[in-house]
Amino acid sequence: MSATKPGWVVAPWELRWSGLDVEALERTESAFALSNGHLGWRGSLEEGEPRGLPGTYLNGFYEEHSLPYAESGYGYPEAGQTVVNATDGKIIRLLVGDEPLDMRYGAAVHHERVLDFRSGTLSRNTEWVSPTGRRVRITTQRLVSFTQRAVAAIRYEVEPVDGELQVVLQSDLLANEPIESTSKDPRVAAALRAPLAADFAASEGYRAVLVHHTKRSGLRLAAAMDHELEATDGLHTEMHVEEDLARLTAAVDVPAGGRLRLTKYLAYGWSGQRSVPALRAQVDAALAGALQTGWDGLLAEQRAYLDDFWESADIEIDGDPELQQALRFALYHVLQAGSRGESRAIPAKGLTGPGYDGHAFWDTETFVLPVLSYTIPEAARDALRWRHSTLDKARERARVLGQRGAVFPWRSINGEECSAYWPAGTAAFHVAADIADATVRYLGATGDTDFDRNEGAELLIETARLWASLGHHDPHGGFRIDGVTGPDEYTAVVDNNVYTNLMAQRNLLQAAAACERLPEVAERLGVEEGEVAFWRNAARNMVVPYDDVLGVHPQSERFTEHTEWDFAATPPEGYPLLLNYPYFDLYRKQVIKQADLVLALHLRGDAFTEEQKARNFAYYEARTVRDSSLSACTQAVIAAEVGHLDLAYDYLAETALADFHDIHRNVRNGLHIASLAGSWIATIAGLGGMRDHDGVLTFAPRLPAALRSITFRMCYRETRFAVEVTQEQASYRLISGKPLHTAHHGEPIVVSPGEPVVRPLPPPPRHPAPQQPVGRAPQRRSRPPV
Amino acid sequence: MSATKPGWVVAPWELRWSGLDVEALERTESAFALSNGHLGWRGSLEEGEPRGLPGTYLNGFYEEHSLPYAESGYGYPEAGQTVVNATDGKIIRLLVGDEPLDMRYGAAVHHERVLDFRSGTLSRNTEWVSPTGRRVRITTQRLVSFTQRAVAAIRYEVEPVDGELQVVLQSDLLANEPIESTSKDPRVAAALRAPLAADFAASEGYRAVLVHHTKRSGLRLAAAMDHELEATDGLHTEMHVEEDLARLTAAVDVPAGGRLRLTKYLAYGWSGQRSVPALRAQVDAALAGALQTGWDGLLAEQRAYLDDFWESADIEIDGDPELQQALRFALYHVLQAGSRGESRAIPAKGLTGPGYDGHAFWDTETFVLPVLSYTIPEAARDALRWRHSTLDKARERARVLGQRGAVFPWRSINGEECSAYWPAGTAAFHVAADIADATVRYLGATGDTDFDRNEGAELLIETARLWASLGHHDPHGGFRIDGVTGPDEYTAVVDNNVYTNLMAQRNLLQAAAACERLPEVAERLGVEEGEVAFWRNAARNMVVPYDDVLGVHPQSERFTEHTEWDFAATPPEGYPLLLNYPYFDLYRKQVIKQADLVLALHLRGDAFTEEQKARNFAYYEARTVRDSSLSACTQAVIAAEVGHLDLAYDYLAETALADFHDIHRNVRNGLHIASLAGSWIATIAGLGGMRDHDGVLTFAPRLPAALRSITFRMCYRETRFAVEVTQEQASYRLISGKPLHTAHHGEPIVVSPGEPVVRPLPPPPRHPAPQQPVGRAPQRRSRPPV
Repeated sequence: MSATKPGWVVAPWELRWSGLDVEALERTESAFALSNGHLGWRGSLEEGEPRGLPGTYLNGFYEEHSLPYAESGYGYPEAGQTVVNATDGKIIRLLVGDEPLDMRYGAAVHHERVLDFRSGTLSRNTEWVSPTGRRVRITTQRLVSFTQRAVAAIRYEVEPVDGELQVVLQSDLLANEPIESTSKDPRVAAALRAPLAADFAASEGYRAVLVHHTKRSGLRLAAAMDHELEATDGLHTEMHVEEDLARLTAAVDVPAGGRLRLTKYLAYGWSGQRSVPALRAQVDAALAGALQTGWDGLLAEQRAYLDDFWESADIEIDGDPELQQALRFALYHVLQAGSRGESRAIPAKGLTGPGYDGHAFWDTETFVLPVLSYTIPEAARDALRWRHSTLDKARERARVLGQRGAVFPWRSINGEECSAYWPAGTAAFHVAADIADATVRYLGATGDTDFDRNEGAELLIETARLWASLGHHDPHGGFRIDGVTGPDEYTAVVDNNVYTNLMAQRNLLQAAAACERLPEVAERLGVEEGEVAFWRNAARNMVVPYDDVLGVHPQSERFTEHTEWDFAATPPEGYPLLLNYPYFDLYRKQVIKQADLVLALHLRGDAFTEEQKARNFAYYEARTVRDSSLSACTQAVIAAEVGHLDLAYDYLAETALADFHDIHRNVRNGLHIASLAGSWIATIAGLGGMRDHDGVLTFAPRLPAALRSITFRMCYRETRFAVEVTQEQASYRLISGKPLHTAHHGEPIVVSPGEPVVRPLPPPPRHPAPQQPVGRAPQRRSRPPV
Repeated sequence: MSATKPGWVVAPWELRWSGLDVEALERTESAFALSNGHLGWRGSLEEGEPRGLPGTYLNGFYEEHSLPYAESGYGYPEAGQTVVNATDGKIIRLLVGDEPLDMRYGAAVHHERVLDFRSGTLSRNTEWVSPTGRRVRITTQRLVSFTQRAVAAIRYEVEPVDGELQVVLQSDLLANEPIESTSKDPRVAAALRAPLAADFAASEGYRAVLVHHTKRSGLRLAAAMDHELEATDGLHTEMHVEEDLARLTAAVDVPAGGRLRLTKYLAYGWSGQRSVPALRAQVDAALAGALQTGWDGLLAEQRAYLDDFWESADIEIDGDPELQQALRFALYHVLQAGSRGESRAIPAKGLTGPGYDGHAFWDTETFVLPVLSYTIPEAARDALRWRHSTLDKARERARVLGQRGAVFPWRSINGEECSAYWPAGTAAFHVAADIADATVRYLGATGDTDFDRNEGAELLIETARLWASLGHHDPHGGFRIDGVTGPDEYTAVVDNNVYTNLMAQRNLLQAAAACERLPEVAERLGVEEGEVAFWRNAARNMVVPYDDVLGVHPQSERFTEHTEWDFAATPPEGYPLLLNYPYFDLYRKQVIKQADLVLALHLRGDAFTEEQKARNFAYYEARTVRDSSLSACTQAVIAAEVGHLDLAYDYLAETALADFHDIHRNVRNGLHIASLAGSWIATIAGLGGMRDHDGVLTFAPRLPAALRSITFRMCYRETRFAVEVTQEQASYRLISGKPLHTAHHGEPIVVSPGEPVVRPLPPPPRHPAPQQPVGRAPQRRSRPPV
């Protein structure tokens, strides 16, 4: 056991946990998860136990279950979807003499795990003394390949420390691994108890394959493994295969100074259509590719991929090493969640855990895609392509709901609505505008005309059609959108939610622009002349309620007339409120779970004056409890804009460190990918003041007093550039590509190769410090000046 | 088979169905149900089959089941309750020779069933020819006793028509009778499949008893039967008893002209507390009482009870025989539902079917209790006592919801909330004011000071406390009640629902008055000085939104700004809308399921001017689809008040005839007791113009052109009186009791014994005829003048 208390170690380019803490495994498994967006492995120990919650996930691979309603209603979705733990190939068990390696027993003389953000590998270094005193060193390294998306690999080395030892390794492929269900619904738990039905199992040499399908959703999964073994003489191996288990066993006497090294290659594939032989062939082929590349080759490819990523995405912070680490951790996991998902969704937890049943939400478009659009834009494109691929389902859902255009699901894996509580699901129509906004942003960031023609314009048009049918003109000509739920989940089914209306306004105008830009797409979709005119008219007359008395925008119609939440009478254990107070009471009071009007101040900042922003921010700051992980980042952005730089820094740190400190107490179920992405937003849009209204990129950077500098990198239309912000100035520098046209605090600038642009920072606006509800202020990050 | 088409036969004092229609059994079983409010029997044929849905119900006897939620929330009720089919004692099977009587086979030469509203019996007269030609006459008569609430009885006579026949009768007590579940929820269906666990079974002579308990709710039920047999010589009998069945078999050869007569006495009892021996003794004692009274004695008691009822409750209509029958049918079933329920609820379906799981709703207080208060007030008192008996549960529910006072359930059998969809359940807080209103009405109608002291004032105070905590003062001093659902179920979770606010206003003022009237009660309940002042202040400043532009009251804040429903595009099969359109779309549009603002015009008519009533009525008339059975009666009341007398007549007829014609297509599951009560309201408050604001009784009668006269009877503070309304005048006449102080069209009058008061009818107000949504006008009842 190491001398210091087990825990995270601050380091700029890695996530390091030093020491053994079995209780912490649940959350470290999430933080140490490896993924390429297609295949995800939680950071379980190779020997399988002790464990928190083992998990191997394939993006889009789910089981179905019925959704129960004590009182049903028209249009309620009947089937739910839940991500399933796929065949586990991470397991390599070790027998030392006759004792199994189990870190709950014996002693961990040394134990350390490191996720390296540049190599893209998870390493382990353990020195363990068995209960009877046998001492071994175990060194492992594993990766889920960014370059070969079906492939993962593990290198496992074991060395006797004191003298010769018999060592036995068992390398498994294990299906229907028993796991504890996180669902309270007995039907969901039953569906996941042993979700996989065996189709096929085979082995040859060190290679084995298992093929299964899910019992109700009927998706087929193949997993295969192959191995390379390096050992001293006397190696004995055997392969065993049954329906739910393939196991390579290797036994050898390892002399002192010797070593047994196992390299395990894994390949995964799934399909809703392909046959058993086809899937088997697919994983065999992927394995062949991995073997041909080899372990060192996979490592090299991984590093090259990441070098390229960091060149366009890195953030350097001078003055806060912990935040530095957290920001790279965040970016790394956002990359892992989105990089190779391709035609699948980016789930709220990525592929790091079973939380939210593996569903994707609006968070992907609103929080994750901004990061991807400016760092690895093809991943943003692929996520939007997934939305586009579900358009027929969304059109059918719109039809069921009596609307035109497309109604995208509130939560889903395959594009069908899985939300069983419509006031916080179906009614949250803003997801349509969020998708449109992400489309506009991606198009602005890339100028990708192919995407525009094939997918983007269609997404804009079908979402605009929804708004046209959902809203109506009041007698004074105002265009109202009634009976919807905005981002704040403590307010539901309201009229004229400002966020929704302003985002719908952009959606309508951008759809109209798309029809002009791409008349052939408009024609293909049957857009009529009057339709575009109607969109423009609706956008022009969009109702945006304003409270003249208070001088603020009500989050939705009459919100500011509602009674205040009694924060003084709410004890700390009363949070999150939704677990301790009824919806009806939350909904009718001025209490806010997460930024809603404040999110409008960010994403539709072009629709507010500076004075309105400051007043609105102060008003909502006093009523926002941040029971959602999707709030602090937005509060950071607006706090920075209206001049509360220390507060912005506090919120940035809260966002970036939330999963480190498990502040929402559910990291066990997976990381909060959107919140991690939010730490990029808090940095770039917050401290960097980046805005991209209608695709036009501008900056207005400012630093809190505690930081010496921040340097961030982005790519925009194939130009890579860096912005360095100090207390006094900002400098804009091209890394590669064509000159960048942007603005610094409102002043247009052009950044050309070899010609950095340096500008001083204007003083921040001055407004009174806002107050948060009692006990809900963020932790103070900003230290008092020395 | 009778020559004419099977169906209802119009008759003033009975419900008569002539001919055989097996398909219609489901609904005729409901219409022919017998009940005394404690025990209910559906009108199944004695031989058990063919059948629609057999049912024997004991008020308050239910099974529990868990309520499933795909997405749960704080404060959601976890257990549901469902009325169970108790041990069936109605069954008397007949074997004619070797052929069972089954009306699906052979031929029904004659078949008629009659529910007599004056004798309180259901009779049957069948002449049946078996498939092999044996001809018998079966005559039965049965009753559920109003005077001996645990008792029911059947007289069964069988006569061979053509010559001697062997006749075998099997008289059953049958528990866990297999029935088709009406629930879509598999858990509820499972809970009801065989809900009764056997405790005890015994027999002696012609008597048998079965004791069971429900498996989860643990309620115990005893059912016992005894028999008298009259037959020619050679009668052979045997008694058989097993866990779920007791059967007396009687076999005899009946000569031509002879008869076998069986009189079956049944007694029921249930308890959540009492032991098997105690319950067994209870039903044995009830049987002994019934036998001592005897069949003729039970018939005589039943008739005397009903004579007394009709003397204080009858309505005579001259000019519409069908409506005459329907109104007596309605009154009879309201009496059956409420008469002897005593400390139990009056369920929405009474004890006529399993609809709504046997739950009671606000309909009881708002629609049923007005009838009972003025016809059989002790039944109204008992229903309010049931509410009072659940106060501890309601206080606990208020605590869970963070409110003060009492939160009564939206739907329940035992007083615990069973509503699983809070926007149309918990949020419909108006149930509190409805209970208070019924309390005020009952107190006004009776002057029952004992009830006031023991229960009434407490109901008023605890409901007022709810409003005080639920509402809040806005910055201008107005008292708002936000985030609630009014009566209209196509609009939910809104601010300042006019009906709710005005009813809460009365509730608050009446509670303040109760504290003055009964300071000892106020003290016992810890009412503080400031509390009463707060109630009065809140009532005085109650917000009642008004749309200045349209000159109408919005049903709730901003309702009139919502978009209109597209009635022209809604096909007839689109109704009821809630089965064909999503809640979100119904909620946000100006489409109304049932009277809400219009109900406020009735119950809080003192808060509106005549002009406002006419304008509001016309506005809401155009937007109300009457997808609820609780609407037409209220529309009749206000139509009459604002001078649309033919329309009032149409709505009255729709209300009264709804269950005859099965217009809601669910009479199978039981009658709509509140809607039946509504036909009394439509007559007395509609055509009679009766109002009772704050307990003061007034009239303003008027007749539609098609009727020659209406005479209705009521009782008020132990005075019985009749009002006869003709086209020209109204005459008020005392039947018994002290002089009546009331008013005729605003003119105070005193009606003394032997001194009828006759007054001419003023001409009705004239307003333009209102329009209903396309296809949703009521059927025209009023014939054009000859």
